[in-house]
Amino acid sequence: MAVASSVCLLTVREERREKGERASTSPLPVCPWRSPPTMNSREFRRRGKEMVDFVADYLEGIEGRQVYPDVQPGYLRPLVPTSAPEEPDTFEDIINDVEKIIMPGAASPACTELETVMMDWLGKMLKLPEAFLAGEAGEGGGVIQGSASEATLMALLAARTKVTRRLQAASPGLTQGAIMEKLVAYSSDQAHSSVERAGLIGGVKLKAIPSDGKFAMRGSALQEALERDKAEGLIPFFVVATLGTTSCCSFDNLLEVGPVCNKEDMWLHIDAAYAGSSFICPEFRHLLNGVEFADSFNFNPHKWLLVNFDCSAMWVKNRTDLIGAFKLDPLYLKHSHQDSGLITDYRHWQLPLGRRFRSLKMWFVFRMYGIKGLQAYIRKHIQLAHEFEHLLHQDPRFEICAEVTLGLVCFRLKGSNKLNEALLERINSAKKIHLVPCHLKGKFVLRFAICSRTVESTHVRLAWDHISQLASDLLRAEKE
Amino acid sequence: MAVASSVCLLTVREERREKGERASTSPLPVCPWRSPPTMNSREFRRRGKEMVDFVADYLEGIEGRQVYPDVQPGYLRPLVPTSAPEEPDTFEDIINDVEKIIMPGAASPACTELETVMMDWLGKMLKLPEAFLAGEAGEGGGVIQGSASEATLMALLAARTKVTRRLQAASPGLTQGAIMEKLVAYSSDQAHSSVERAGLIGGVKLKAIPSDGKFAMRGSALQEALERDKAEGLIPFFVVATLGTTSCCSFDNLLEVGPVCNKEDMWLHIDAAYAGSSFICPEFRHLLNGVEFADSFNFNPHKWLLVNFDCSAMWVKNRTDLIGAFKLDPLYLKHSHQDSGLITDYRHWQLPLGRRFRSLKMWFVFRMYGIKGLQAYIRKHIQLAHEFEHLLHQDPRFEICAEVTLGLVCFRLKGSNKLNEALLERINSAKKIHLVPCHLKGKFVLRFAICSRTVESTHVRLAWDHISQLASDLLRAEKE
Repeated sequence: MAVASSVCLLTVREERREKGERASTSPLPVCPWRSPPTMNSREFRRRGKEMVDFVADYLEGIEGRQVYPDVQPGYLRPLVPTSAPEEPDTFEDIINDVEKIIMPGAASPACTELETVMMDWLGKMLKLPEAFLAGEAGEGGGVIQGSASEATLMALLAARTKVTRRLQAASPGLTQGAIMEKLVAYSSDQAHSSVERAGLIGGVKLKAIPSDGKFAMRGSALQEALERDKAEGLIPFFVVATLGTTSCCSFDNLLEVGPVCNKEDMWLHIDAAYAGSSFICPEFRHLLNGVEFADSFNFNPHKWLLVNFDCSAMWVKNRTDLIGAFKLDPLYLKHSHQDSGLITDYRHWQLPLGRRFRSLKMWFVFRMYGIKGLQAYIRKHIQLAHEFEHLLHQDPRFEICAEVTLGLVCFRLKGSNKLNEALLERINSAKKIHLVPCHLKGKFVLRFAICSRTVESTHVRLAWDHISQLASDLLRAEKE
Repeated sequence: MAVASSVCLLTVREERREKGERASTSPLPVCPWRSPPTMNSREFRRRGKEMVDFVADYLEGIEGRQVYPDVQPGYLRPLVPTSAPEEPDTFEDIINDVEKIIMPGAASPACTELETVMMDWLGKMLKLPEAFLAGEAGEGGGVIQGSASEATLMALLAARTKVTRRLQAASPGLTQGAIMEKLVAYSSDQAHSSVERAGLIGGVKLKAIPSDGKFAMRGSALQEALERDKAEGLIPFFVVATLGTTSCCSFDNLLEVGPVCNKEDMWLHIDAAYAGSSFICPEFRHLLNGVEFADSFNFNPHKWLLVNFDCSAMWVKNRTDLIGAFKLDPLYLKHSHQDSGLITDYRHWQLPLGRRFRSLKMWFVFRMYGIKGLQAYIRKHIQLAHEFEHLLHQDPRFEICAEVTLGLVCFRLKGSNKLNEALLERINSAKKIHLVPCHLKGKFVLRFAICSRTVESTHVRLAWDHISQLASDLLRAEKE
């Protein structure tokens, strides 16, 4: 789970944003990405008010609607394109489709079916291997979870059930307790705290694999750890690889770690909570290479793909692994289609029973921006991160502490941790911007994250001038 | 988790609702509860559109706002009354308070602090024992979860950690695996499937206690089961008591079960997902007697208290039990107030890390209805359930299968399960209303649940006429 915890709200109090402002003498690279096409304030007011009327009309006329839909399972997929549009659709198009496609399917099955199709759309945007898609007759598929924490936990629990059944099939005398005592999961020492928490909840050991000089988990380090554990009689069963770690947005080496997991019959879960959104751009898709070795993959469109919180997208290759872990069917939850194999019961894919209609958010966002608009948004943020990186490079007082790959820049003043803690204190006390720190190999590091929908180059420069000024003040004060 | 899975949408296709319609010859009890004061469609349109402008204005002016609030931890409680209002507030009052009380506290700490105060308001509405409230310096407190499933799971996990630590403190050589293998949790055989699921996830045994003739778990049956299990070397550690079961809205006997749990040092969790809302009425509060024996209590305001999905309210007596089970503090989640003891870090109280601002929904609903309005709403539903019960009583072809306490009526045609399955099939195929069945002691039972915000006496009669007609058709067809 990645950079969300670093908050850099580029809201500047006195200085108002001036669109397009750029000093003509600037030595900075010019950002080639224009703002993606988005709804302006005027249209937002108009459409928002139309939606209020839509809801009121619906409630006024609800007695004219049928309590149970006439549609058959699978009705929705043929009514919707097989992938997201490249160019934006209009708001009218979308709202007309709501009346035409969603309303006849009521809350159920429309809520489920749109989710399956939207997760296929998104999977295709990322170029996920076919095996992760539901399609017409696939064995995989996607589900919206509330958070990456829940996705990691679901994957760990499914893996725990799978290995327990396998071991009990081979040795029927083995109890669940005897197995759980020996199970061990792995992640990089850079993995998010939610991975450790999943281990605690699942009642299994979780071991941290030391990352390399670039803060990545390597295949050899994983292999070493699990050989040692196997020799001690433990049972390695689950690995979380992180793409885009929280601290510094580093990437575990999937092309090494993946084959180790497959060879050892361990479930591989990928947590790309923050970085995942960038994979919709062809030039960043290589960061996902190796996903073909994984059993489950997760990222958060609510972090960086303009879908409002919460919306955490999770895919599995074999949905029966997930479903098999928790399926319980009391009579009051039975329905006439459940044994047909035609439909998806998402309640078996997640921790809660109830579900919100979150795929509507995805549908609206994907169509209103189009794939090109979303790509432009990602590219712009990354470009702005490089702009900040460039400013840092020109100032010899600072050092950059990790490779800038996406929208996060890890930096510090050359000097002691104490000095950098003092700088952060000055920055956050001034309340013009807000930064969240991390530790990298013992160094106290500041994190500059581009994450606001409306961020522009001017904000980055204002932030830099501000940081630079506070650094000067601090260094002067230190000398006195 | 209760009656939500029974859906009776009293939407009638041809017959339009006529407010106040009642045949003068009706032998039915007259419903004394008028509709609670609610926002009509006209005001909804007006206020909804004002809210759209509020959001647009906020976004347009966001650069004039500070990125980090000036308020200190605990700022909010003194600005808000100590309990919910008896009479409704106006929409203007509430929206003015949003600007005055919420906006200066931004998302954090306003989101956390309003939640703590709203959970205290709601706890007081239910007359929960003081120990469950956070107050100024309490050791308990409430948190909003997404679902009763998650509340049950959190309670089970906290109980598991607590008993494990206690046993390991007494016998340091004991491994977690050795303990988990012996842990056993209990619930009634009428408990919701989510309880069994929590056991599966937590990796512990869950045993069903046979309920009595009124579908209630009794103290003696629980005591018997745990004596047997202790004799076999197992470790009883957790009990879920249900108030308002899903199948028939029965109530476990808390006054018997509670003391058993306390004596045996087992964590008692109460699941009142559906029934909980009714406890705000003094005449139904007795159903909650015995809550003082519990460690945690949960119900879903999104089921029956007019708060939109999702909003599941959970209280614990000792918040350190919950927090202690999962607390992990990486640097990127640290903040300057966390060791002060002044603030609540809800991320330790739940499975996900991220949180939505769900307490705003509670604040608006509690203030717009007032306690009296909410009580009137509950009373009206229960009265309508009794109206349906009365209609059934007058028809000798039907039998009532469980005591009608709240808004659920369990009934069936006198006769075979096959006959009743056929009746349900006819009802649900006609699609005028929708019923969900259950099994009670081997009998196939239909469930009529009052749960729509706008339901009136006319709907209940139309539904009854419809069911009665379909039953006549069925019985005639059976004879032929």
